[in-house]
Amino acid sequence: MSQTPAVTPIAILEQELALIKYNADGLVPVVTQDAKSMQVLMMAWMNAETLRMTLAEGRMVYYSRSRQEIWRKGDTSGDRQFVREGFYDCDNDTLLFLVEQEGNGACHTGAVSCFYRKFGEGSHDAH
Amino acid sequence: MSQTPAVTPIAILEQELALIKYNADGLVPVVTQDAKSMQVLMMAWMNAETLRMTLAEGRMVYYSRSRQEIWRKGDTSGDRQFVREGFYDCDNDTLLFLVEQEGNGACHTGAVSCFYRKFGEGSHDAH
Repeated sequence: MSQTPAVTPIAILEQELALIKYNADGLVPVVTQDAKSMQVLMMAWMNAETLRMTLAEGRMVYYSRSRQEIWRKGDTSGDRQFVREGFYDCDNDTLLFLVEQEGNGACHTGAVSCFYRKFGEGSHDAH
Repeated sequence: MSQTPAVTPIAILEQELALIKYNADGLVPVVTQDAKSMQVLMMAWMNAETLRMTLAEGRMVYYSRSRQEIWRKGDTSGDRQFVREGFYDCDNDTLLFLVEQEGNGACHTGAVSCFYRKFGEGSHDAH
């Protein structure tokens, strides 16, 4: 077994959180990137509550639109994502997190990244 | 003046384009990453028409939600984005493009990336 990656919570600054704009469903899109390889792993959504949890816990906590519930990434799969840095964009309506990805990868298909299919090559399997 | 980057269109495969899922507004989120530095530059939206234009022209063509029009990135600012690779995710509802960024950067503030503010540091200017 490899060691659990270090957990590095990020200071919660209310003036920053107050800037973030959510869509009509109360969600903000989040791009998640591997802090070492710089590969973009996935895009998902957070609400105000799970953004706060993500910063406080130092682990990526999304909001699942399909299940309509808090999605603490990796609690089921073991493929947790440990936060290294978080950013918000110029319009305050998109987030970017650099993470240490635990386990096999970010994608439920078993691929490291959810973006494993390339335009111009035709569709194919994950592996 | 630096030379214009090479333009590399991507083959349009109808079976790939047919996979892509658009939201209720007919849009799909697009993550744009610098192909060399691997820095995530921005997140924006495309519709089916501008995705097709992006592949055909080898330049990033978004759909502006605020202006409700086709947004051929850089036509006004000069900061064009030349496509190197494009990917679609496991759910077929998010795109990732690796680009060569021309000019000063991707952000209208003058920053290289729109994600220039970091959680835990308080808000500050772009530069």
